[in-house]
Amino acid sequence: MQTKIDFKQAMNILQSQNITTLGVERVFLHDALGRVLAHDIYAESDMPHCALSNMDGYAFNSTFKDAKSFRILGVNQAGNAIPTLPLDAPFAIKTFTGAKIPQNADMLVPIEHCTLIQDTLSIETLPSIGQYMRQAGDNYKKGEKLLSKGTRLNANHIGLLASLNQVFIKVFARPKVGILVSGNELLELGESVSLTQDIYNANGHLLLAKVLENGGIPKLYPILKDDKAQVKSNIECALKECDMVITSGGASVGDYDFITALCKERTKEVIFQGVRIKPGQHIVYAQFNSKHFFGLPGFPNSTLVTFELFVKEILLRLLGTKLKRTTFKIPLSFDIDKNDTRLEFRVCNVRNKEGSFSIDFKDKKDFQSAILNNFCPLDNAQVGLCVLDSAKKSGEITEVILL
Amino acid sequence: MQTKIDFKQAMNILQSQNITTLGVERVFLHDALGRVLAHDIYAESDMPHCALSNMDGYAFNSTFKDAKSFRILGVNQAGNAIPTLPLDAPFAIKTFTGAKIPQNADMLVPIEHCTLIQDTLSIETLPSIGQYMRQAGDNYKKGEKLLSKGTRLNANHIGLLASLNQVFIKVFARPKVGILVSGNELLELGESVSLTQDIYNANGHLLLAKVLENGGIPKLYPILKDDKAQVKSNIECALKECDMVITSGGASVGDYDFITALCKERTKEVIFQGVRIKPGQHIVYAQFNSKHFFGLPGFPNSTLVTFELFVKEILLRLLGTKLKRTTFKIPLSFDIDKNDTRLEFRVCNVRNKEGSFSIDFKDKKDFQSAILNNFCPLDNAQVGLCVLDSAKKSGEITEVILL
Repeated sequence: MQTKIDFKQAMNILQSQNITTLGVERVFLHDALGRVLAHDIYAESDMPHCALSNMDGYAFNSTFKDAKSFRILGVNQAGNAIPTLPLDAPFAIKTFTGAKIPQNADMLVPIEHCTLIQDTLSIETLPSIGQYMRQAGDNYKKGEKLLSKGTRLNANHIGLLASLNQVFIKVFARPKVGILVSGNELLELGESVSLTQDIYNANGHLLLAKVLENGGIPKLYPILKDDKAQVKSNIECALKECDMVITSGGASVGDYDFITALCKERTKEVIFQGVRIKPGQHIVYAQFNSKHFFGLPGFPNSTLVTFELFVKEILLRLLGTKLKRTTFKIPLSFDIDKNDTRLEFRVCNVRNKEGSFSIDFKDKKDFQSAILNNFCPLDNAQVGLCVLDSAKKSGEITEVILL
Repeated sequence: MQTKIDFKQAMNILQSQNITTLGVERVFLHDALGRVLAHDIYAESDMPHCALSNMDGYAFNSTFKDAKSFRILGVNQAGNAIPTLPLDAPFAIKTFTGAKIPQNADMLVPIEHCTLIQDTLSIETLPSIGQYMRQAGDNYKKGEKLLSKGTRLNANHIGLLASLNQVFIKVFARPKVGILVSGNELLELGESVSLTQDIYNANGHLLLAKVLENGGIPKLYPILKDDKAQVKSNIECALKECDMVITSGGASVGDYDFITALCKERTKEVIFQGVRIKPGQHIVYAQFNSKHFFGLPGFPNSTLVTFELFVKEILLRLLGTKLKRTTFKIPLSFDIDKNDTRLEFRVCNVRNKEGSFSIDFKDKKDFQSAILNNFCPLDNAQVGLCVLDSAKKSGEITEVILL
């Protein structure tokens, strides 16, 4: 077990874990949106299968390119079989966009570059051989790799898979993620505020939605009281039922921090406990019963930030893909104070104005740890984490992680 | 009807349309992820409701701050009612993180800043009044606006809504979007290739997935033959059944372009036809029977790009929200050729290396219009559209729209 390590060490530890995906399932193409592809996809044939026209025009054989006029033998639209009319004289076949290029034709003159009087065509601007057409295999060739295992499928990929006649797609199974929050002060939604309980369970629903957004299957357990036996038995149950377990709360150093107590009993399974960052310094990563376990802090901001920084690294690999962060280097237009020696991830607004990015802290409240509304700007700003190793002066470059 | 307008004009026309959302529905909190909020959300009470401790420590009244020692009267954990033990002498109450600050206490000394010998506390570093605690309303005050109508809800918003005990959320209804593709050469997935039909319906499934990604409800109609009556009657049917209709194919100037033919018959309802861009110059935007209609080109690349540039503008406003594009200004490290006078949106790779962005055209095939695999890079690059008004030299700045 490593304790109070720095952020880079923690990332190295997470990234070096040997992580096994959860098997493969086949889903219908439309249900594959957002899922992770479980194998490489190769082209089974050339695309297009044969030469096709890219324009509406007239196809002919280049032997006769200098002929004064051509006789039109027929009309060839997309969806016709390859025309086999002889093109052994100054003959041409009207050939529409997407239609197959007729046999023995190697030139296509667009309708804009010729004139047609009755059935007789004269060419004004001669095309080069093969111009305005695609040859067999121009999109891709048989055997070419088109999609990589581990790709999280978006609409563009769905379109490509459809073009390949892929009806059922092999994707990685989604990990089941158990979510447990603890705290005597917490109420479930719909319950009434009392003198003792007056904080609604934000973290449970926040984590559920984060797990959904990242492709996992969340399982929300009942709110735990600050009771050691209850915390232990519910975590045991979640470890049995899920592929990953996340707790929120109880990870600090107080008398009622039963996640911390649990870690003391199972030190051999704890990978790290405590990272020198703000917020979230008490974070725990363990492998209890060989299942991934994250003990996140209970303040909502800290829960959210540690999910983004740590949990996603493992969750996305369990899903068979990898976390891709969007980070910016942004010059500051103001000073930033900082009193703490820990590396800080301070929530900020990210603004994109005509291609340039800037950050600010407009409407961000102090004591960020407890304040979830800092992540919900009212003015259409995007949300980022400003990475602060020290105080910064206006003009200095700062790193920002886009959330 | 305006024809062959420039891109800016087209955008202005789309953005100036008066668009009505489709009514409001109430969905359970977890189902609100990705939906668009239909009203502003205000705080119904101060948060926190009363002063809370941010640390594990000891609470006392500052009148006695200079006392040499304090007697501990009790223990106060999160979820307890506000302690009312008298603090009218050098008395202190052990108060854990998240616990309510005891009546008459205005100072909290963290456990790290004091020593406890038996039941007697001596303070080493005196806190200031109110330090290490949050006051009522520090997160937000009663009546404060917390979320705006039109917000597309992500996991952070779900967490905030949970903290507000919002179980059912009012969101805008999702528009139903009819998707029709036409072409004699097209096969539906699962059908067998023949001498005449050998192109699978990529565009229909691409558009379905794009509509899903953007929050609409797609309705895929059967593939249309290049048959005027069939095209017309199916579009009529889709206009009845859907809030928006998108077609792909048949919008060029050829004999079998029946979308173009339809527009000729209904010119009064066509808002614009033809935009001077590449790809996608034949795009149509109309309001047929007062429903939004987009006639997109049939080449998959052109379909995809025109969906991104034009359809999303209207679709997201029908959903009650607004399109937010991420654009970059990126200095080029190579020359870009361009022979066409139209404004071009050329698909490119966008790479983020340690906070700096660059673009390239690695593995992008020529004649982009037909080639969907250009949007599916194999090497983890993001996909963008490089906006080209002219050829560019290395070092020049170019605008890139992230897809």
